[in-house]
Amino acid sequence: MPRSIAVKPTLQPELFAYSFPVRVYFENTDAGGVVYHAEYFKFLERARTEWLRHLGFDHQALAANHRAVFIVSSIVADFLKPALLDDLLAVSVQLESLGKVRCIFVQEVRREDEVLVKAKVTVACVTGETFKPVEIPEALRRKMEASV
Amino acid sequence: MPRSIAVKPTLQPELFAYSFPVRVYFENTDAGGVVYHAEYFKFLERARTEWLRHLGFDHQALAANHRAVFIVSSIVADFLKPALLDDLLAVSVQLESLGKVRCIFVQEVRREDEVLVKAKVTVACVTGETFKPVEIPEALRRKMEASV
Amino acid sequence: MPRSIAVKPTLQPELFAYSFPVRVYFENTDAGGVVYHAEYFKFLERARTEWLRHLGFDHQALAANHRAVFIVSSIVADFLKPALLDDLLAVSVQLESLGKVRCIFVQEVRREDEVLVKAKVTVACVTGETFKPVEIPEALRRKMEASV
Amino acid sequence: MPRSIAVKPTLQPELFAYSFPVRVYFENTDAGGVVYHAEYFKFLERARTEWLRHLGFDHQALAANHRAVFIVSSIVADFLKPALLDDLLAVSVQLESLGKVRCIFVQEVRREDEVLVKAKVTVACVTGETFKPVEIPEALRRKMEASV
Repeated sequence: MPRSIAVKPTLQPELFAYSFPVRVYFENTDAGGVVYHAEYFKFLERARTEWLRHLGFDHQALAANHRAVFIVSSIVADFLKPALLDDLLAVSVQLESLGKVRCIFVQEVRREDEVLVKAKVTVACVTGETFKPVEIPEALRRKMEASV
Repeated sequence: MPRSIAVKPTLQPELFAYSFPVRVYFENTDAGGVVYHAEYFKFLERARTEWLRHLGFDHQALAANHRAVFIVSSIVADFLKPALLDDLLAVSVQLESLGKVRCIFVQEVRREDEVLVKAKVTVACVTGETFKPVEIPEALRRKMEASV
Repeated sequence: MPRSIAVKPTLQPELFAYSFPVRVYFENTDAGGVVYHAEYFKFLERARTEWLRHLGFDHQALAANHRAVFIVSSIVADFLKPALLDDLLAVSVQLESLGKVRCIFVQEVRREDEVLVKAKVTVACVTGETFKPVEIPEALRRKMEASV
Repeated sequence: MPRSIAVKPTLQPELFAYSFPVRVYFENTDAGGVVYHAEYFKFLERARTEWLRHLGFDHQALAANHRAVFIVSSIVADFLKPALLDDLLAVSVQLESLGKVRCIFVQEVRREDEVLVKAKVTVACVTGETFKPVEIPEALRRKMEASV
Protein backbone atom coordinates (compact mmCIF):
# COMPACT_ATOMS: atom_id res chain seq x y z
CA MET A 1 0.00 0.00 0.00
CA PRO A 2 1.29 3.48 -0.81
CA ARG A 3 2.51 5.70 2.03
CA SER A 4 0.50 8.65 0.88
CA ILE A 5 -2.31 8.56 -1.64
CA ALA A 6 -2.75 11.58 -3.85
CA VAL A 7 -6.16 13.20 -3.75
CA LYS A 8 -6.46 13.48 -7.53
CA PRO A 9 -7.41 10.26 -9.38
CA THR A 10 -4.13 8.60 -10.32
CA LEU A 11 -2.99 5.18 -11.34
CA GLN A 12 0.15 4.15 -9.55
CA PRO A 13 1.07 0.99 -11.49
CA GLU A 14 4.14 0.26 -9.42
CA LEU A 15 1.89 0.20 -6.37
CA PHE A 16 -1.08 -1.50 -8.01
CA ALA A 17 -3.40 1.05 -6.46
CA TYR A 18 -5.88 3.56 -7.85
CA SER A 19 -7.11 6.40 -5.67
CA PHE A 20 -10.22 8.56 -5.99
CA PRO A 21 -11.00 11.73 -3.99
CA VAL A 22 -14.24 12.07 -2.02
CA ARG A 23 -15.40 15.20 -0.20
CA VAL A 24 -17.54 14.84 2.94
CA TYR A 25 -20.82 16.81 2.81
CA PHE A 26 -23.65 17.18 5.34
CA GLU A 27 -25.49 14.35 3.53
CA ASN A 28 -22.73 11.93 4.67
CA THR A 29 -22.69 12.86 8.36
CA ASP A 30 -24.88 11.90 11.30
CA ALA A 31 -25.87 13.35 14.65
CA GLY A 32 -22.67 11.95 16.15
CA GLY A 33 -20.89 14.68 14.18
CA VAL A 34 -18.99 12.22 11.97
CA VAL A 35 -19.54 10.30 8.72
CA TYR A 36 -22.35 7.74 9.10
CA HIS A 37 -20.82 4.26 8.77
CA ALA A 38 -22.96 3.09 5.83
CA GLU A 39 -21.81 6.10 3.78
CA TYR A 40 -18.28 4.70 3.53
CA PHE A 41 -19.69 1.86 1.40
CA LYS A 42 -20.89 4.46 -1.08
CA PHE A 43 -17.41 6.01 -1.13
CA LEU A 44 -15.83 2.59 -1.74
CA GLU A 45 -18.20 1.96 -4.63
CA ARG A 46 -17.60 5.37 -6.19
CA ALA A 47 -13.88 4.56 -6.24
CA ARG A 48 -14.46 1.09 -7.80
CA THR A 49 -16.74 2.68 -10.42
CA GLU A 50 -14.14 5.30 -11.30
CA TRP A 51 -11.43 2.62 -11.46
CA LEU A 52 -13.68 0.72 -13.91
CA ARG A 53 -14.16 3.90 -15.94
CA HIS A 54 -10.38 4.38 -15.87
CA LEU A 55 -10.08 0.89 -17.43
CA GLY A 56 -12.50 2.03 -20.15
CA PHE A 57 -15.81 0.60 -18.88
CA ASP A 58 -18.93 1.94 -17.24
CA HIS A 59 -22.01 0.31 -15.71
CA GLN A 60 -24.45 1.41 -18.42
CA ALA A 61 -22.24 0.07 -21.23
CA LEU A 62 -21.58 -3.23 -19.39
CA ALA A 63 -25.32 -3.74 -18.97
CA ALA A 64 -26.17 -2.71 -22.55
CA ASN A 65 -23.34 -4.52 -24.36
CA HIS A 66 -22.67 -7.51 -22.11
CA ARG A 67 -25.87 -7.84 -20.00
CA ALA A 68 -23.42 -7.85 -17.08
CA VAL A 69 -23.99 -6.17 -13.73
CA PHE A 70 -21.59 -6.14 -10.80
CA ILE A 71 -23.06 -6.75 -7.37
CA VAL A 72 -21.39 -6.72 -3.96
CA SER A 73 -21.50 -10.25 -2.53
CA SER A 74 -19.54 -9.70 0.67
CA ILE A 75 -17.90 -6.97 2.71
CA VAL A 76 -15.44 -6.94 5.58
CA ALA A 77 -14.75 -3.46 6.96
CA ASP A 78 -12.93 -1.95 9.93
CA PHE A 79 -13.80 1.60 10.93
CA LEU A 80 -10.63 2.89 12.58
CA LYS A 81 -11.15 6.64 12.87
CA PRO A 82 -14.08 8.89 11.99
CA ALA A 83 -14.13 11.22 8.99
CA LEU A 84 -15.60 14.68 9.55
CA LEU A 85 -17.67 17.23 7.66
CA ASP A 86 -15.62 19.02 4.95
CA ASP A 87 -12.86 16.37 5.02
CA LEU A 88 -11.23 15.54 1.70
CA LEU A 89 -10.70 11.78 1.61
CA ALA A 90 -8.76 9.48 -0.71
CA VAL A 91 -10.36 6.11 -1.47
CA SER A 92 -8.02 3.47 -2.88
CA VAL A 93 -8.85 0.48 -5.09
CA GLN A 94 -6.57 -2.52 -5.32
CA LEU A 95 -7.62 -5.70 -7.11
CA GLU A 96 -6.54 -8.53 -4.82
CA SER A 97 -7.84 -11.52 -6.74
CA LEU A 98 -9.67 -12.13 -9.99
CA GLY A 99 -11.80 -15.24 -10.58
CA LYS A 100 -14.07 -16.10 -13.51
CA VAL A 101 -17.13 -14.53 -11.92
CA ARG A 102 -15.90 -12.88 -8.73
CA CYS A 103 -13.13 -10.48 -7.84
CA ILE A 104 -11.91 -9.19 -4.52
CA PHE A 105 -10.89 -5.61 -3.89
CA VAL A 106 -8.82 -4.32 -1.00
CA GLN A 107 -9.76 -0.70 -0.34
CA GLU A 108 -8.88 2.04 2.11
CA VAL A 109 -10.35 5.39 2.98
CA ARG A 110 -7.63 7.84 4.00
CA ARG A 111 -7.37 11.43 5.20
CA GLU A 112 -3.84 12.40 4.30
CA ASP A 113 -1.65 9.84 6.10
CA GLU A 114 -4.36 8.44 8.36
CA VAL A 115 -6.20 5.29 7.39
CA LEU A 116 -9.83 5.76 8.49
CA VAL A 117 -11.44 2.63 7.01
CA LYS A 118 -10.00 -0.64 5.70
CA ALA A 119 -12.23 -2.90 3.64
CA LYS A 120 -12.26 -6.06 1.57
CA VAL A 121 -15.09 -6.13 -0.95
CA THR A 122 -16.07 -9.18 -3.02
CA VAL A 123 -17.89 -8.31 -6.22
CA ALA A 124 -19.68 -10.81 -8.48
CA CYS A 125 -20.70 -10.47 -12.11
CA VAL A 126 -24.34 -11.40 -12.73
CA THR A 127 -26.94 -11.06 -15.48
CA GLY A 128 -29.01 -7.91 -15.10
CA GLU A 129 -32.39 -9.68 -15.34
CA THR A 130 -32.05 -12.82 -13.23
CA PHE A 131 -29.01 -12.10 -11.08
CA LYS A 132 -27.46 -15.42 -12.18
CA PRO A 133 -23.64 -15.53 -12.05
CA VAL A 134 -21.93 -14.95 -15.40
CA GLU A 135 -18.28 -14.70 -16.40
CA ILE A 136 -16.73 -11.25 -16.30
CA PRO A 137 -16.72 -10.00 -19.94
CA GLU A 138 -13.43 -10.96 -21.62
CA ALA A 139 -12.48 -7.44 -22.71
CA LEU A 140 -12.83 -6.19 -19.16
CA ARG A 141 -11.05 -9.21 -17.70
CA ARG A 142 -7.97 -8.51 -19.81
CA LYS A 143 -7.87 -4.92 -18.59
CA MET A 144 -8.30 -6.06 -15.00
CA GLU A 145 -5.50 -8.64 -15.33
CA ALA A 146 -3.18 -5.99 -16.74
CA SER A 147 -3.90 -3.81 -13.70
CA VAL A 148 -2.83 -6.43 -11.16
CA MET B 1 -56.15 19.33 8.50
CA PRO B 2 -56.59 17.33 11.67
CA ARG B 3 -55.57 18.90 14.99
CA SER B 4 -53.61 15.88 16.06
CA ILE B 5 -52.52 13.01 13.88
CA ALA B 6 -52.28 9.57 15.45
CA VAL B 7 -48.92 7.85 15.17
CA LYS B 8 -50.43 4.55 14.05
CA PRO B 9 -51.49 4.29 10.38
CA THR B 10 -55.12 5.35 10.29
CA LEU B 11 -57.56 6.55 7.73
CA GLN B 12 -59.58 9.49 8.95
CA PRO B 13 -62.20 9.74 6.21
CA GLU B 14 -63.96 12.68 7.78
CA LEU B 15 -60.66 14.54 7.61
CA PHE B 16 -59.53 13.15 4.24
CA ALA B 17 -56.10 12.43 5.69
CA TYR B 18 -53.99 9.34 6.11
CA SER B 19 -51.08 9.30 8.54
CA PHE B 20 -48.04 7.04 8.69
CA PRO B 21 -45.50 6.82 11.55
CA VAL B 22 -41.78 7.31 10.90
CA ARG B 23 -39.03 6.86 13.48
CA VAL B 24 -35.84 8.95 13.18
CA TYR B 25 -32.62 6.89 13.16
CA PHE B 26 -28.96 7.93 12.92
CA GLU B 27 -29.17 7.34 9.14
CA ASN B 28 -31.59 10.30 8.88
CA THR B 29 -29.58 12.83 10.88
CA ASP B 30 -26.61 15.04 10.00
CA ALA B 31 -23.75 16.73 11.82
CA GLY B 32 -26.07 19.62 12.72
CA GLY B 33 -27.70 17.16 15.13
CA VAL B 34 -31.05 17.17 13.32
CA VAL B 35 -32.74 15.34 10.44
CA TYR B 36 -31.01 16.10 7.14
CA HIS B 37 -33.45 18.06 4.95
CA ALA B 38 -33.45 15.63 2.00
CA GLU B 39 -34.51 12.78 4.32
CA TYR B 40 -37.95 14.33 4.80
CA PHE B 41 -38.67 13.63 1.12
CA LYS B 42 -38.10 9.94 1.82
CA PHE B 43 -40.54 10.15 4.74
CA LEU B 44 -43.13 11.84 2.54
CA GLU B 45 -42.76 9.12 -0.08
CA ARG B 46 -43.00 6.31 2.47
CA ALA B 47 -46.33 7.76 3.59
CA ARG B 48 -47.63 8.09 0.01
CA THR B 49 -46.55 4.49 -0.70
CA GLU B 50 -48.36 3.20 2.41
CA TRP B 51 -51.43 5.23 1.49
CA LEU B 52 -51.32 3.55 -1.94
CA ARG B 53 -50.98 0.15 -0.26
CA HIS B 54 -53.92 1.10 1.97
CA LEU B 55 -55.95 1.65 -1.24
CA GLY B 56 -54.91 -1.84 -2.37
CA PHE B 57 -52.00 -1.04 -4.72
CA ASP B 58 -48.24 -1.31 -4.60
CA HIS B 59 -45.45 -0.14 -6.91
CA GLN B 60 -44.43 -3.63 -8.09
CA ALA B 61 -48.00 -4.57 -9.04
CA LEU B 62 -48.63 -1.23 -10.77
CA ALA B 63 -45.49 -1.73 -12.85
CA ALA B 64 -46.22 -5.40 -13.61
CA ASN B 65 -49.95 -5.12 -14.32
CA HIS B 66 -50.29 -1.59 -15.67
CA ARG B 67 -46.74 -0.64 -16.79
CA ALA B 68 -47.34 2.44 -14.64
CA VAL B 69 -44.77 4.15 -12.45
CA PHE B 70 -45.33 7.21 -10.31
CA ILE B 71 -42.65 9.87 -10.38
CA VAL B 72 -42.37 13.11 -8.43
CA SER B 73 -42.63 16.00 -10.87
CA SER B 74 -42.51 18.90 -8.43
CA ILE B 75 -42.09 19.66 -4.76
CA VAL B 76 -42.72 22.70 -2.58
CA ALA B 77 -41.59 22.28 1.02
CA ASP B 78 -41.23 24.45 4.10
CA PHE B 79 -38.96 23.22 6.88
CA LEU B 80 -40.42 24.84 10.00
CA LYS B 81 -38.73 23.03 12.89
CA PRO B 82 -36.08 20.32 13.01
CA ALA B 83 -36.80 16.69 13.88
CA LEU B 84 -34.29 14.97 16.16
CA LEU B 85 -32.75 11.53 16.62
CA ASP B 86 -35.22 9.04 18.16
CA ASP B 87 -38.25 11.24 17.38
CA LEU B 88 -41.43 9.45 16.38
CA LEU B 89 -43.03 11.43 13.57
CA ALA B 90 -46.42 11.27 11.87
CA VAL B 91 -46.48 11.90 8.12
CA SER B 92 -49.86 12.77 6.64
CA VAL B 93 -51.13 12.24 3.09
CA GLN B 94 -54.01 14.24 1.68
CA LEU B 95 -54.93 14.09 -1.99
CA GLU B 96 -55.56 17.69 -3.01
CA SER B 97 -56.30 17.26 -6.70
CA LEU B 98 -56.54 14.39 -9.15
CA GLY B 99 -55.98 14.86 -12.88
CA LYS B 100 -55.78 12.24 -15.64
CA VAL B 101 -52.02 11.84 -15.33
CA ARG B 102 -51.01 13.94 -12.35
CA CYS B 103 -52.15 14.29 -8.78
CA ILE B 104 -51.18 16.69 -6.04
CA PHE B 105 -50.65 15.69 -2.42
CA VAL B 106 -50.58 18.00 0.57
CA GLN B 107 -48.44 16.43 3.28
CA GLU B 108 -47.15 17.29 6.71
CA VAL B 109 -44.53 15.88 9.02
CA ARG B 110 -45.56 16.27 12.65
CA ARG B 111 -44.15 15.49 16.08
CA GLU B 112 -47.22 15.32 18.27
CA ASP B 113 -48.89 18.71 17.83
CA GLU B 114 -45.98 20.47 16.16
CA VAL B 115 -45.86 20.73 12.38
CA LEU B 116 -42.19 20.32 11.37
CA VAL B 117 -42.51 20.22 7.58
CA LYS B 118 -45.30 21.22 5.19
CA ALA B 119 -45.12 20.04 1.60
CA LYS B 120 -47.03 19.96 -1.66
CA VAL B 121 -45.93 17.12 -3.92
CA THR B 122 -47.01 16.68 -7.54
CA VAL B 123 -46.81 13.11 -8.76
CA ALA B 124 -47.16 12.00 -12.40
CA CYS B 125 -47.96 8.59 -13.82
CA VAL B 126 -45.53 7.49 -16.55
CA THR B 127 -44.62 4.33 -18.43
CA GLY B 128 -41.78 2.46 -16.76
CA GLU B 129 -39.66 2.17 -19.90
CA THR B 130 -39.84 5.54 -21.58
CA PHE B 131 -41.11 7.83 -18.83
CA LYS B 132 -43.90 9.07 -21.13
CA PRO B 133 -47.02 10.34 -19.32
CA VAL B 134 -49.88 7.83 -19.13
CA GLU B 135 -53.29 7.96 -17.49
CA ILE B 136 -53.51 6.75 -13.91
CA PRO B 137 -54.90 3.17 -14.09
CA GLU B 138 -58.70 3.25 -13.84
CA ALA B 139 -58.97 0.86 -10.87
CA LEU B 140 -56.59 3.02 -8.86
CA ARG B 141 -58.24 6.26 -9.96
CA ARG B 142 -61.59 5.08 -8.62
CA LYS B 143 -60.04 4.30 -5.25
CA MET B 144 -58.30 7.66 -5.20
CA GLU B 145 -61.53 9.51 -6.05
CA ALA B 146 -63.32 7.71 -3.25
CA SER B 147 -60.63 8.88 -0.84
CA VAL B 148 -61.07 12.59 -1.63
CA MET C 1 -31.31 -18.93 14.97
CA PRO C 2 -35.09 -19.17 14.73
CA ARG C 3 -36.62 -20.95 11.73
CA SER C 4 -39.04 -18.18 11.05
CA ILE C 5 -38.84 -14.64 12.38
CA ALA C 6 -42.10 -12.84 12.94
CA VAL C 7 -42.48 -9.51 11.19
CA LYS C 8 -43.74 -7.74 14.26
CA PRO C 9 -41.09 -6.74 16.86
CA THR C 10 -40.89 -9.61 19.29
CA LEU C 11 -38.47 -10.84 21.88
CA GLN C 12 -37.95 -14.55 21.68
CA PRO C 13 -35.97 -15.16 24.87
CA GLU C 14 -35.63 -18.89 24.32
CA LEU C 15 -33.97 -18.11 21.00
CA PHE C 16 -32.07 -15.05 22.20
CA ALA C 17 -33.18 -13.14 19.12
CA TYR C 18 -35.10 -9.95 18.56
CA SER C 19 -36.62 -9.19 15.17
CA PHE C 20 -37.70 -5.88 13.68
CA PRO C 21 -39.72 -5.39 10.46
CA VAL C 22 -38.43 -3.18 7.65
CA ARG C 23 -40.34 -2.30 4.50
CA VAL C 24 -38.41 -1.64 1.26
CA TYR C 25 -39.21 1.71 -0.39
CA PHE C 26 -37.90 3.33 -3.60
CA GLU C 27 -35.32 5.17 -1.45
CA ASN C 28 -33.65 1.82 -0.67
CA THR C 29 -33.39 0.49 -4.22
CA ASP C 30 -30.96 1.16 -7.06
CA ALA C 31 -30.97 0.99 -10.86
CA GLY C 32 -30.24 -2.74 -10.63
CA GLY C 33 -33.85 -3.06 -9.44
CA VAL C 34 -32.87 -4.36 -5.99
CA VAL C 35 -31.97 -2.94 -2.58
CA TYR C 36 -28.66 -1.02 -2.74
CA HIS C 37 -26.10 -2.91 -0.64
CA ALA C 38 -25.27 -0.04 1.74
CA GLU C 39 -28.97 0.29 2.67
CA TYR C 40 -28.87 -3.05 4.52
CA PHE C 41 -26.50 -1.47 7.05
CA LYS C 42 -29.22 1.08 7.82
CA PHE C 43 -31.72 -1.77 8.30
CA LEU C 44 -29.30 -3.56 10.65
CA GLU C 45 -28.86 -0.40 12.70
CA ARG C 46 -32.60 0.29 12.89
CA ALA C 47 -33.04 -3.19 14.37
CA ARG C 48 -30.20 -2.69 16.91
CA THR C 49 -31.69 0.68 17.88
CA GLU C 50 -35.14 -0.83 18.40
CA TRP C 51 -33.61 -3.70 20.40
CA LEU C 52 -31.92 -1.05 22.59
CA ARG C 53 -35.25 0.77 22.97
CA HIS C 54 -36.82 -2.58 23.85
CA LEU C 55 -34.25 -2.86 26.69
CA GLY C 56 -35.32 0.61 27.85
CA PHE C 57 -32.62 2.83 26.33
CA ASP C 58 -32.37 5.23 23.43
CA HIS C 59 -29.48 7.08 21.82
CA GLN C 60 -30.53 10.55 23.00
CA ALA C 61 -30.84 9.42 26.63
CA LEU C 62 -27.53 7.51 26.54
CA ALA C 63 -25.79 10.62 25.23
CA ALA C 64 -27.51 12.98 27.68
CA ASN C 65 -27.30 10.83 30.83
CA HIS C 66 -24.14 8.81 30.24
CA ARG C 67 -22.22 10.79 27.58
CA ALA C 68 -22.11 7.44 25.80
CA VAL C 69 -22.43 6.94 22.05
CA PHE C 70 -22.34 3.62 20.23
CA ILE C 71 -20.31 3.47 17.04
CA VAL C 72 -19.84 0.64 14.58
CA SER C 73 -16.20 -0.46 14.69
CA SER C 74 -16.33 -3.38 12.27
CA ILE C 75 -18.71 -5.17 9.94
CA VAL C 76 -18.64 -8.51 8.17
CA ALA C 77 -21.57 -9.05 5.80
CA ASP C 78 -22.61 -11.59 3.17
CA PHE C 79 -25.24 -10.55 0.65
CA LEU C 80 -26.89 -13.83 -0.34
CA LYS C 81 -30.03 -12.79 -2.23
CA PRO C 82 -31.40 -9.40 -3.23
CA ALA C 83 -34.39 -7.76 -1.55
CA LEU C 84 -36.87 -6.02 -3.84
CA LEU C 85 -39.11 -2.95 -3.82
CA ASP C 86 -42.17 -3.41 -1.55
CA ASP C 87 -40.62 -6.41 0.25
CA LEU C 88 -41.36 -6.72 3.95
CA LEU C 89 -38.17 -7.84 5.68
CA ALA C 90 -37.40 -9.09 9.17
CA VAL C 91 -34.11 -7.96 10.68
CA SER C 92 -32.86 -9.98 13.65
CA VAL C 93 -30.58 -8.92 16.49
CA GLN C 94 -28.65 -11.43 18.56
CA LEU C 95 -25.99 -10.34 21.04
CA GLU C 96 -23.07 -12.73 20.50
CA SER C 97 -20.55 -11.33 22.95
CA LEU C 98 -20.41 -8.52 25.47
CA GLY C 99 -17.13 -6.92 26.55
CA LYS C 100 -16.51 -3.86 28.75
CA VAL C 101 -16.49 -1.46 25.82
CA ARG C 102 -17.42 -3.54 22.78
CA CYS C 103 -20.16 -5.95 21.90
CA ILE C 104 -20.73 -8.13 18.88
CA PHE C 105 -24.09 -8.65 17.22
CA VAL C 106 -25.03 -11.42 14.83
CA GLN C 107 -27.80 -10.19 12.55
CA GLU C 108 -29.81 -11.45 9.61
CA VAL C 109 -32.12 -9.85 7.08
CA ARG C 110 -34.86 -12.27 6.04
CA ARG C 111 -37.84 -12.31 3.69
CA GLU C 112 -40.07 -14.99 5.15
CA ASP C 113 -37.89 -18.12 5.24
CA GLU C 114 -35.11 -16.83 3.00
CA VAL C 115 -31.99 -15.35 4.54
CA LEU C 116 -30.96 -12.42 2.31
CA VAL C 117 -28.09 -10.95 4.35
CA LYS C 118 -25.98 -12.33 7.21
CA ALA C 119 -23.86 -9.92 9.22
CA LYS C 120 -21.61 -9.64 12.24
CA VAL C 121 -21.42 -6.11 13.61
CA THR C 122 -19.00 -4.95 16.31
CA VAL C 123 -20.17 -1.90 18.20
CA ALA C 124 -18.04 0.15 20.62
CA CYS C 125 -19.09 2.55 23.33
CA VAL C 126 -17.30 5.93 23.13
CA THR C 127 -17.62 9.40 24.60
CA GLY C 128 -19.68 11.67 22.39
CA GLU C 129 -17.12 14.49 22.31
CA THR C 130 -13.78 12.80 21.79
CA PHE C 131 -14.73 9.32 20.56
CA LYS C 132 -12.54 7.76 23.29
CA PRO C 133 -13.61 4.25 24.37
CA VAL C 134 -15.65 4.14 27.58
CA GLU C 135 -17.33 1.31 29.43
CA ILE C 136 -20.89 0.50 28.45
CA PRO C 137 -23.11 2.14 31.13
CA GLU C 138 -23.76 -0.32 33.97
CA ALA C 139 -27.57 -0.13 33.82
CA LEU C 140 -27.53 -0.97 30.13
CA ARG C 141 -24.94 -3.71 30.56
CA ARG C 142 -27.13 -5.51 33.05
CA LYS C 143 -30.06 -5.45 30.63
CA MET C 144 -27.81 -6.68 27.83
CA GLU C 145 -26.46 -9.54 29.96
CA ALA C 146 -30.00 -10.58 30.83
CA SER C 147 -30.81 -10.76 27.13
CA VAL C 148 -28.00 -13.21 26.27
CA MET D 1 -28.76 31.74 -16.94
CA PRO D 2 -25.86 30.54 -19.06
CA ARG D 3 -26.56 28.55 -22.23
CA SER D 4 -24.11 25.86 -21.33
CA ILE D 5 -22.51 25.26 -17.97
CA ALA D 6 -19.02 23.83 -17.88
CA VAL D 7 -18.61 20.62 -15.91
CA LYS D 8 -15.52 21.83 -14.08
CA PRO D 9 -16.12 24.21 -11.15
CA THR D 10 -15.93 27.70 -12.56
CA LEU D 11 -17.03 31.13 -11.53
CA GLN D 12 -18.66 32.99 -14.37
CA PRO D 13 -18.96 36.45 -12.84
CA GLU D 14 -20.61 37.99 -15.89
CA LEU D 15 -23.33 35.36 -15.58
CA PHE D 16 -23.48 35.38 -11.77
CA ALA D 17 -23.43 31.59 -11.75
CA TYR D 18 -21.15 28.97 -10.27
CA SER D 19 -21.28 25.39 -11.50
CA PHE D 20 -20.14 22.18 -9.83
CA PRO D 21 -19.90 18.73 -11.46
CA VAL D 22 -21.67 15.71 -9.97
CA ARG D 23 -21.35 12.14 -11.22
CA VAL D 24 -24.32 9.77 -10.81
CA TYR D 25 -23.47 6.49 -9.04
CA PHE D 26 -25.62 3.46 -8.14
CA GLU D 27 -26.17 5.03 -4.69
CA ASN D 28 -28.16 7.86 -6.35
CA THR D 29 -30.48 5.72 -8.47
CA ASP D 30 -33.65 3.79 -7.68
CA ALA D 31 -35.54 0.80 -9.08
CA GLY D 32 -37.14 3.08 -11.67
CA GLY D 33 -33.69 3.14 -13.30
CA VAL D 34 -33.20 6.88 -12.74
CA VAL D 35 -31.87 9.20 -10.03
CA TYR D 36 -34.11 9.07 -6.93
CA HIS D 37 -35.76 12.48 -6.52
CA ALA D 38 -34.44 13.20 -3.01
CA GLU D 39 -30.86 12.72 -4.21
CA TYR D 40 -31.03 15.92 -6.27
CA PHE D 41 -31.28 17.88 -3.01
CA LYS D 42 -27.91 16.43 -2.01
CA PHE D 43 -26.46 17.51 -5.36
CA LEU D 44 -27.86 21.03 -4.89
CA GLU D 45 -26.30 21.23 -1.44
CA ARG D 46 -22.92 19.95 -2.61
CA ALA D 47 -22.86 22.77 -5.16
CA ARG D 48 -23.82 25.40 -2.56
CA THR D 49 -21.13 24.05 -0.22
CA GLU D 50 -18.48 24.24 -2.94
CA TRP D 51 -19.63 27.73 -3.87
CA LEU D 52 -19.17 28.67 -0.19
CA ARG D 53 -15.71 27.09 -0.21
CA HIS D 54 -14.97 29.04 -3.40
CA LEU D 55 -15.80 32.23 -1.44
CA GLY D 56 -13.31 31.11 1.23
CA PHE D 57 -15.63 29.56 3.83
CA ASP D 58 -16.53 26.06 4.95
CA HIS D 59 -19.15 24.68 7.33
CA GLN D 60 -16.69 23.58 10.04
CA ALA D 61 -15.01 27.00 10.16
CA LEU D 62 -18.34 28.87 10.18
CA ALA D 63 -19.50 26.74 13.12
CA ALA D 64 -16.19 27.04 15.01
CA ASN D 65 -15.48 30.74 14.40
CA HIS D 66 -18.97 32.21 14.09
CA ARG D 67 -21.25 29.60 15.72
CA ALA D 68 -23.20 29.89 12.48
CA VAL D 69 -24.89 27.01 10.69
CA PHE D 70 -26.83 27.24 7.45
CA ILE D 71 -30.09 25.32 7.27
CA VAL D 72 -32.50 24.89 4.39
CA SER D 73 -35.78 26.60 5.29
CA SER D 74 -37.71 26.08 2.07
CA ILE D 75 -37.41 24.39 -1.30
CA VAL D 76 -39.31 24.66 -4.56
CA ALA D 77 -38.20 22.15 -7.20
CA ASP D 78 -39.36 21.00 -10.62
CA PHE D 79 -38.11 17.65 -11.89
CA LEU D 80 -38.18 18.02 -15.67
CA LYS D 81 -36.20 15.03 -16.97
CA PRO D 82 -34.56 12.11 -15.21
CA ALA D 83 -30.79 11.75 -14.76
CA LEU D 84 -29.33 8.28 -15.31
CA LEU D 85 -26.59 6.10 -13.90
CA ASP D 86 -23.09 7.27 -15.01
CA ASP D 87 -24.38 10.70 -16.09
CA LEU D 88 -22.08 13.63 -15.47
CA LEU D 89 -24.21 16.54 -14.30
CA ALA D 90 -23.53 20.24 -13.78
CA VAL D 91 -25.18 21.86 -10.76
CA SER D 92 -25.37 25.66 -10.83
CA VAL D 93 -25.56 28.11 -7.92
CA GLN D 94 -26.90 31.62 -8.34
CA LEU D 95 -27.55 33.86 -5.36
CA GLU D 96 -30.92 35.48 -6.07
CA SER D 97 -31.39 37.52 -2.92
CA LEU D 98 -29.47 38.19 0.25
CA GLY D 99 -31.18 39.22 3.49
CA LYS D 100 -29.72 39.65 7.00
CA VAL D 101 -30.45 36.06 8.00
CA ARG D 102 -31.76 34.35 4.87
CA CYS D 103 -30.64 34.06 1.29
CA ILE D 104 -32.29 32.54 -1.74
CA PHE D 105 -30.47 30.47 -4.33
CA VAL D 106 -31.68 29.65 -7.82
CA GLN D 107 -30.13 26.37 -8.92
CA GLU D 108 -30.27 24.02 -11.87
CA VAL D 109 -29.11 20.49 -12.52
CA ARG D 110 -28.06 20.07 -16.14
CA ARG D 111 -26.77 17.30 -18.38
CA GLU D 112 -25.01 19.17 -21.15
CA ASP D 113 -27.68 21.46 -22.63
CA GLU D 114 -30.68 19.83 -20.97
CA VAL D 115 -32.08 21.24 -17.75
CA LEU D 116 -33.14 18.27 -15.61
CA VAL D 117 -34.08 20.02 -12.36
CA LYS D 118 -34.85 23.65 -11.52
CA ALA D 119 -34.90 24.69 -7.88
CA LYS D 120 -35.22 27.66 -5.58
CA VAL D 121 -33.67 27.05 -2.17
CA THR D 122 -34.02 29.38 0.82
CA VAL D 123 -31.23 29.03 3.35
CA ALA D 124 -31.22 30.57 6.83
CA CYS D 125 -28.31 31.24 9.18
CA VAL D 126 -28.90 29.91 12.71
CA THR D 127 -26.90 29.25 15.85
CA GLY D 128 -25.60 25.69 15.97
CA GLU D 129 -26.92 24.96 19.45
CA THR D 130 -30.41 26.39 19.53
CA PHE D 131 -31.25 26.87 15.86
CA LYS D 132 -32.20 30.50 16.57
CA PRO D 133 -31.83 32.84 13.56
CA VAL D 134 -28.61 34.90 13.52
CA GLU D 135 -27.19 37.34 11.03
CA ILE D 136 -24.96 35.92 8.32
CA PRO D 137 -21.36 36.61 9.46
CA GLU D 138 -20.16 39.96 8.08
CA ALA D 139 -17.05 38.60 6.35
CA LEU D 140 -19.11 36.05 4.46
CA ARG D 141 -21.87 38.55 3.63
CA ARG D 142 -19.37 40.85 1.95
CA LYS D 143 -18.12 37.97 -0.21
CA MET D 144 -21.69 37.00 -1.05
CA GLU D 145 -22.61 40.57 -2.01
CA ALA D 146 -19.57 40.76 -4.27
CA SER D 147 -20.74 37.59 -6.02
CA VAL D 148 -24.18 38.95 -6.94
